[in-house]
Formats: sequence, structure tokens, C-alpha cells
Amino acid sequence: MKTITAFAPATVANLGCGFDIMGLAIKGEGDIVSVQLAEDMQHPEYKEDNLSIVNRSGVDLPSSIEHNVITPAVRAFMDSFRINMESPSSYYDIEVDILKKIYPGSGVGSSAASSSAAVYALNNIFNSPFSEPELVYFAMQGEKLLGGVAHADNVAPAIMGGVTLIRGYSPLDIVRLPIPENFFSAVVHPHLTVLTSEARKVLPEGVPLRKSVSQWGNVGGLVAGFYTSDMELIARSMKDEIVEQYRKGFIPGYDELRVAAEKSGAMAMNIAGSGPSVFAVCNNAESAEKVGKVMHKHFIDRKIDCDIFVNTISQSGAKIIE
Amino acid sequence: MKTITAFAPATVANLGCGFDIMGLAIKGEGDIVSVQLAEDMQHPEYKEDNLSIVNRSGVDLPSSIEHNVITPAVRAFMDSFRINMESPSSYYDIEVDILKKIYPGSGVGSSAASSSAAVYALNNIFNSPFSEPELVYFAMQGEKLLGGVAHADNVAPAIMGGVTLIRGYSPLDIVRLPIPENFFSAVVHPHLTVLTSEARKVLPEGVPLRKSVSQWGNVGGLVAGFYTSDMELIARSMKDEIVEQYRKGFIPGYDELRVAAEKSGAMAMNIAGSGPSVFAVCNNAESAEKVGKVMHKHFIDRKIDCDIFVNTISQSGAKIIE
Repeated sequence: MKTITAFAPATVANLGCGFDIMGLAIKGEGDIVSVQLAEDMQHPEYKEDNLSIVNRSGVDLPSSIEHNVITPAVRAFMDSFRINMESPSSYYDIEVDILKKIYPGSGVGSSAASSSAAVYALNNIFNSPFSEPELVYFAMQGEKLLGGVAHADNVAPAIMGGVTLIRGYSPLDIVRLPIPENFFSAVVHPHLTVLTSEARKVLPEGVPLRKSVSQWGNVGGLVAGFYTSDMELIARSMKDEIVEQYRKGFIPGYDELRVAAEKSGAMAMNIAGSGPSVFAVCNNAESAEKVGKVMHKHFIDRKIDCDIFVNTISQSGAKIIE
Repeated sequence: MKTITAFAPATVANLGCGFDIMGLAIKGEGDIVSVQLAEDMQHPEYKEDNLSIVNRSGVDLPSSIEHNVITPAVRAFMDSFRINMESPSSYYDIEVDILKKIYPGSGVGSSAASSSAAVYALNNIFNSPFSEPELVYFAMQGEKLLGGVAHADNVAPAIMGGVTLIRGYSPLDIVRLPIPENFFSAVVHPHLTVLTSEARKVLPEGVPLRKSVSQWGNVGGLVAGFYTSDMELIARSMKDEIVEQYRKGFIPGYDELRVAAEKSGAMAMNIAGSGPSVFAVCNNAESAEKVGKVMHKHFIDRKIDCDIFVNTISQSGAKIIE
């Protein structure tokens, strides 16, 4: 029997204009899961792996494994492993212990951190047969459980670290971008639950061509800003003309929050992923601290409890810690 | 009286995914215009500049100055010059001679080359009061005459050279991107006229959100490819899921043309701007020559005469030649 413990960071998806294609990993926060694996010799009649998930995190999670994002991620990993690497007759007892958990529905990639840490640990147990982009593909399957769409904007940075761009989904094509050293973020997580599925439901099926053109101009500018370490260009580009208008209703006083954040030094502010967390960008630590406090006050004034994370980007993604 | 002659290169807009926001300048081809300016001392009662355009290019052009793209570009320049730089009472006799002209409707930025060369020459006459992005803004006003929309994807590279990204239009925000040395293009111009206004009419007002997401993933990938000199990434990203399907009908046998071009070595192929020119990308000169011949044959076989331009990118944009 082998046991491996892995960490995967919290992540912020979308970054304004990059809905479903961009994300970054935040330093410090994240999930820790431990994976135990034993070949299931006692039950040669088994036709599938015997997966169990034990929640030791103290955070309330669905009790059925069918409702846990780790399950489809681990199954996608094992299916591919069996097809590509092994004889199809080996099945395993797999236990995933969730030791530390970002609060679900926070908008900083809670589900992505769990599924990413799980497949990262599993890959290590089997001596790393899969590449990081392949692990992203497996972890994505967990996202499908939540939003109905297997998006990779959180799982890519959760596994690969830094800032990632999903160039395309078929086939999955991920580009790891450089990021300026003076990129600081203040993320505030108000204790409101916005389910990814709800946040997807409010989106329209179609968007005006004009707005779509603005959005891809901003995506181009954002990528250019990362390559040239141009914080001004990054901030000008970090705008969302498509999704924000539909999702900001989940966040009390969103427009006032932006005014307050920008007044106190934020260069840009957007909803983190599907919300309700909000993500501000600054070019120095002091300014990010100040913006974090202003955003915190915004929610406290509205009798909504919240956490703040003021951080730089994590250049590393998932990692083995034991 | 002062006379200045300027050249502005042919350009390819859109580059697949970058509809209305990306473009590049082609080496060799372009327009040449000569601008003569005299202060209109004889007519102090004049309340506007006396603009005349003389077509010496041999190419058929509208005879009224109101239908020439140079007119709104020159007027926008002079209006801004008068407001920002000069006393509002000076008016001029301005004569623009068109000496060499890309065939209009070719899809390689024929209108952009004229208006760009004109404002570039005019700026030089006044000792360069305006920056290149400001000149782009003036030249854009000519594009409005044609398509009803003041887009900058051709005029930006026509003035600034290389590859340009229009991050945003209000305010105009242009990013000049680097380009790999082994970027070769084969552009074929079939002698069919597709008016920009017609090519705009076929576009839908709205696009599905899913396709829009694919498109901005590709824009991000294309920009990343330019920064990393990754020709494979550039080629994978140079796809258009939004516009091509509506415009390819203007180009006989478009799908077969792509198959033939890719078979003969093209890494990507797209409509150049609003067409009917078609633009293929290769990573060496030999391959671009071969692809150019195959694309030429495609049109000749269909009894459509055509020109081929096989070239690298022009790093310089508009320039004074006399």
C-alpha cells in the first residue's frame, strides 16, 4: 500500500476578459489531500476500482462520492491509465482523504484544488506516467460535475502554477504565461455561496459580436501585458464586457466595491471565477494590503463576513508534500 | 508650398481569430501618395481646407473626393491639428496625388494603405506633431467610409509596421507585437471584388458564447505565439470560428483551397481581412513559394485571374520616400 499527500493551490479564473480560458494560482491557500492505493487482490471479481473519499477537513462536503468532484477526476485518471499503461484487469482500492479544504463556492477554485491535488498524488503513486496537461484533463472532469462544462481555467493553474491560458479545448492546449514580479492580488471571499451551476445559468447563450470583439482585444492585451511585464497594459485589459454584467448581481454593492477598490489603489478589479470572491490587482504589496482592507470593510458594512487573501502569484502549482 | 511623398504597405487583417483587432504589414506591396500643401492666402473667406485628390495610379477609383477614403482621414488630421496645434483660422490648399495603388477590394488593406500614406505624409509636412497611434486614429476614419465601422486592424500595421493588436477602441490602444523571423506568408488575390460593406453585411449581430470563448482562446494563443516565436502555436491559434463561415462564400472553392494549401505545406490559412484575398502561413520561404503556386492554380483552374505575393512581414510601416 502506498500513500502520497499532495497540495494544490487556490486559483482565480477568468481574470476579467478571459472567461473559461485564463486563470492563475494564488500563493498560500489551497487544498491538501492524501491518496492511499492498494491493489485489490482480495476481490478478483471486481470490475472497477473501489473508491472511497474521507472528509477530514472539517468543511461540510457532500457525503456521496458521486457528488464529490474528486470522483470523476480519479476515474478519468484510472480509465486512461488502464487503457494506455496497464493490463485492463487490475483494479485498486483507492482512498482519498481530504485533509484541508478551501470553502466550497468561494470562487477561488475550491473544486479545482481538490481534484487537482487528488490526480497529482495519484500520478506520483504510479511514478508519474502522465504529463501536467494530461493531469489537467483528468481534473477537469470534476468541474463538469459542478457546472455541466469541463472547463480548465481553474484546474490548469492549480496543477501547473502561475498564469495559464487555455488556447483550445479540443485538443486541450495550455500555454503557461510569464507573470510580472510586481503583480499583487487582493482576493476577498464574502461568505455567500454562489454555486457554479447557478452562476452559469445566468449567462446568455449568445453575445453581441461587437462586445465579443472588445473582449478578444482585451484577451490579446492581457497576454501581451504578461509577456512584457506591463502592469498598466494588464490592468487596462483586465475587463469583462460579457459575463460580469450577469454575475455581479450575486455580489452585494459590486459597482460601489469597484469604485472603492480603485480609489484605494486597485489597478483592476473583477469577479474571481464564478464569484462571489472578488479579485483586485495592484503593483505593490502595500497597495494590495490597503485594497484588501477596503474590500473587507465593504462586506462587513453589509453584515457579510469575509476572508481576505493578499498575495502574489504562486509560480508552482500542485506539489507532493509527503 | 511643400510636397512630401509617402509609402504605406499592404496589410492583412484579422489573422484568423483576430477579427477587427489584429493585422500585419506585408513586405513590398503598398500605396504611394504625394501630398502638396499651401496656405490658402488667396481666399481668406474660406472656412475649410480646399482638398483635391488626383488619381495618377492607373487604377479605377471613385472620382468624387467624398467617396475616397483619403478625404475623411485628411479631414480628421486637419481638424485635430487645428484644435490642438494651431490657430483655428488657418486653412490650406491640400492636393493628394495617388501615384501607386493596390487594387481596391483586394482584401490586403487597399484603403488603409492610401489613407495611412496620406496622413503620414501630412504629418511630416507639419514636422510630425502627431504620434503613430494618433495617425492610426485619423487613417481609421477612412475605413468608416467603406464599412460603416472605423476599424483599425489594417491601418495600425500600415502605419506602425509588423504585427499590431488593437487592445481597445475607446480610447484607441494599440500594442505592437514581435514576430518570428521565420514567419512567411503567401497571399493570393483573386480578381473578384468583395466590398468591405458587403463582407460586413453577411456577419451576424450575435455570436454563440461557446464560439466566442474558443475565439478568445485562439487570440490569446496567437499573441503568446508571437511573443515566444512559436510558429506551431501561431498556426494552431490562427483559426476563426466566427467570421470565416459567413465570408468564405465569397471565395470559390474555399474549403478545397484550404485542403490543397495545407497539403502543400501551409501551417494555417485564412481569409485576408474581408477577402477575397487568402492568406497562408509557412515557416520557410520555399514552402511559402510552393503554397502560393498551389493557391494560384486553384483560382486559375476556376478561370479566375489572380496575383500572388510571397513575402515576409514588413517590420516598418508607412515611410517617407521623397
